[in-house]
Amino acid sequence: MNLYDYIASIPDYPIKGVLFRDVTPLIQDGPAFKEVTNKLAKIAKDLKVDVIVGPESRGFIFGCPVATELNVGFVPARKPNKLPREVISYQYSLEYGTNSLEMNKDAIKPGQRVLVIDDLLATGGTINAVNKMVEQLGGIVVGDAFLIELVDLKGREALKGYEVFSILQFEGE
Amino acid sequence: MNLYDYIASIPDYPIKGVLFRDVTPLIQDGPAFKEVTNKLAKIAKDLKVDVIVGPESRGFIFGCPVATELNVGFVPARKPNKLPREVISYQYSLEYGTNSLEMNKDAIKPGQRVLVIDDLLATGGTINAVNKMVEQLGGIVVGDAFLIELVDLKGREALKGYEVFSILQFEGE
Repeated sequence: MNLYDYIASIPDYPIKGVLFRDVTPLIQDGPAFKEVTNKLAKIAKDLKVDVIVGPESRGFIFGCPVATELNVGFVPARKPNKLPREVISYQYSLEYGTNSLEMNKDAIKPGQRVLVIDDLLATGGTINAVNKMVEQLGGIVVGDAFLIELVDLKGREALKGYEVFSILQFEGE
Repeated sequence: MNLYDYIASIPDYPIKGVLFRDVTPLIQDGPAFKEVTNKLAKIAKDLKVDVIVGPESRGFIFGCPVATELNVGFVPARKPNKLPREVISYQYSLEYGTNSLEMNKDAIKPGQRVLVIDDLLATGGTINAVNKMVEQLGGIVVGDAFLIELVDLKGREALKGYEVFSILQFEGE
């Protein structure tokens, strides 16, 4: 099975000049979704993780099956005002304006080993915010793992100091 | 393990008079999240499902681990303009105004057996919309499964004609 065959490429989405990589053909296919889960779960096992964290909402799609496979908890990083209990939040800059994410204050215990999982690494802004929140709660970010890495956007440099894993790499865009 | 102990109850959230049931303590706990996944996976296996469908975004949290456990595909039902390829959409009424959901046109093949999974059954409006979209694509809705059912809101009546499964039931609110 060639997992690259299960990624759809959509030109000029969501804005002109962007080539969007759509993971839905992959997750709609049972064996392909399972193979990605197995690969991510192997990374998580090797890192001896205690908790998986994933940002809303495609991080849920890849992070949750890994959490249940390893029998560890899953912590969602959500957009503001979605989590009803006590949260910490982190604001970060985008090209225009800012974005922010929230995480439950009781989500991570100090010293827990955390793997952050998302569908795609672009510039790394979102995942950097998640890493910082995990650390604010006393967790240890043992890795950031992605299905897809857009190599030219240099997300790895934005995440310098963290171990970055990706299953599929796209270049030249 | 008593799964009820892992549901937080938040009064007056998101609006006054609503007692919000928060599933994050459950998913943050590895064994509790795993137990729920096992229960939902058993329902799915017994129904011999081909595909799991889950609405954005808490449906992803419970639906995706069941899909990978059974080695079947997962289809997200998303808010408008999140899916970049050809979609079908369904608009439904809320108390004030309307809401709408979209699903990939290629998500389901005619005759496939579909289990719809979400975190919580309240009035059933969202899941009814998902059921209708599955049928529009030629799929057979073999069940709607939830972690939580708010019994007094009579979602089962709104989903009459469909098999409804819930793991935890809350009454008297």
